[in-house]
Amino acid sequence: MTQATGSIADDPPRSVLGRALGVLAAFSDASPELALADIVAATSLPPATAHRIVAELVAWGALERVGRGRYRIGIRLWRVGALAPSARNLREAALPPMQDLAAATGHVVHLVVLDGHRALFVERLAGQDDVTVRSRVGRDMPLHASGPGKVLLAHAPASLVDEVVARGLPRLAPGTITDPAGLRGALDVVRRTGYCLSREEMTEGSASVAAPVVDAEDRVVAALAVVVPVSAALPPFVPAVRMAAAGASRRLGHRERTEIPLGARSG
Amino acid sequence: MTQATGSIADDPPRSVLGRALGVLAAFSDASPELALADIVAATSLPPATAHRIVAELVAWGALERVGRGRYRIGIRLWRVGALAPSARNLREAALPPMQDLAAATGHVVHLVVLDGHRALFVERLAGQDDVTVRSRVGRDMPLHASGPGKVLLAHAPASLVDEVVARGLPRLAPGTITDPAGLRGALDVVRRTGYCLSREEMTEGSASVAAPVVDAEDRVVAALAVVVPVSAALPPFVPAVRMAAAGASRRLGHRERTEIPLGARSG
Repeated sequence: MTQATGSIADDPPRSVLGRALGVLAAFSDASPELALADIVAATSLPPATAHRIVAELVAWGALERVGRGRYRIGIRLWRVGALAPSARNLREAALPPMQDLAAATGHVVHLVVLDGHRALFVERLAGQDDVTVRSRVGRDMPLHASGPGKVLLAHAPASLVDEVVARGLPRLAPGTITDPAGLRGALDVVRRTGYCLSREEMTEGSASVAAPVVDAEDRVVAALAVVVPVSAALPPFVPAVRMAAAGASRRLGHRERTEIPLGARSG
Repeated sequence: MTQATGSIADDPPRSVLGRALGVLAAFSDASPELALADIVAATSLPPATAHRIVAELVAWGALERVGRGRYRIGIRLWRVGALAPSARNLREAALPPMQDLAAATGHVVHLVVLDGHRALFVERLAGQDDVTVRSRVGRDMPLHASGPGKVLLAHAPASLVDEVVARGLPRLAPGTITDPAGLRGALDVVRRTGYCLSREEMTEGSASVAAPVVDAEDRVVAALAVVVPVSAALPPFVPAVRMAAAGASRRLGHRERTEIPLGARSG
């Protein structure tokens, strides 16, 4: 009888739909394949409820059953997700200049967007020797600890910077900026120069050059970055990264005006 | 009171979860942004039910509200979908050789998988002049009317070929194979040669060269293709496409054995 009504307060006081979304949320980059017992553990759902939800998700194609009672995200959910604007319009606009940047430099190229208090990889092209980079499309990272994260933070509302600072600035690598004043100063530099250089902020051995991608309404919607070994000189990559970011922005309908860095004479 | 129980037979005899999945399925490549009225029309749900489901999907991040009461797929659903193996393992394996192929040829490069009775684009890299190609990640196409589609069909169970034939072979472009015997003959050629040449089968003005991507268990899991103008000679692209497909296969753990085309002497 519990099967039919669906909104009995079994355990977590959620709707049927909320429970189903909880099942989907149990899958992650670290756990892309789960057994029913894992899903039960992650969602605190009664096993019978979890089983029924999983069966319905499999029937629709949101989940796929793999051998031995394990499940993973299905191709139909991927298709629906691919309709999200970040994956669709942004990626389509950015991909050609990203390909050019990857081809010209031979290094890993990232496209990163803001997702709440985190930075989210929406695209990643491979370099000739992708050694130290363990990025992956769909994975996230802290905003304070990378070039693209700082670019996004530099152009976000000041309240987001306050919130990120309030949550703490954990050290991830030798170069991570861990003090609030240092972070705010770095964001000022990003806004003033139009790009961001980072050395070992997220990963030891890696450095990056990042620049903002701007849409038709002058909003910074993404950061585009190249990742290089920390031994490399970064300035030679700046014009190429800015070109790629400008190309992506133009393809999003952004119209270039007189640029701030050229106009900002201090003398 | 109807809100609390959730499994009342309002209209279509479906569960709450089934209705929510129906709301997601209303979004498509042709309609990536919908008003509530569109969702009601597409799902046949009572407006109040549709509204409640949409609100819950927005709260979770499966949908995003855009201005003026319109909705689109949200970044959180994209993230979950990105965990699907086709988007994750396959794409990661195929991307570096696809980038090389795009850079070497300057043409659009596709990665395509089987999805029921259709072929589904899971990755697309841009060419220098992508004129006639209107492909898009997440979009599908008929199996019989393209190079990658025929590669997938050639390596699918015979029952799938029968089903595709039974559903009819509509003409999409001047070169579409519309007779069953012709299609079966073309699939034989694909199996024998290890690649597929197509001219104006799906799009007037476009031709393609496609080859299979094979996983560690010797299953053809995808087709990789380059799209060129129909005026181009196709044979020069065959070795490059096969190299890219072989590279993707090797990165999936496939071990090359003595190849069929070399061993199959007819004399």
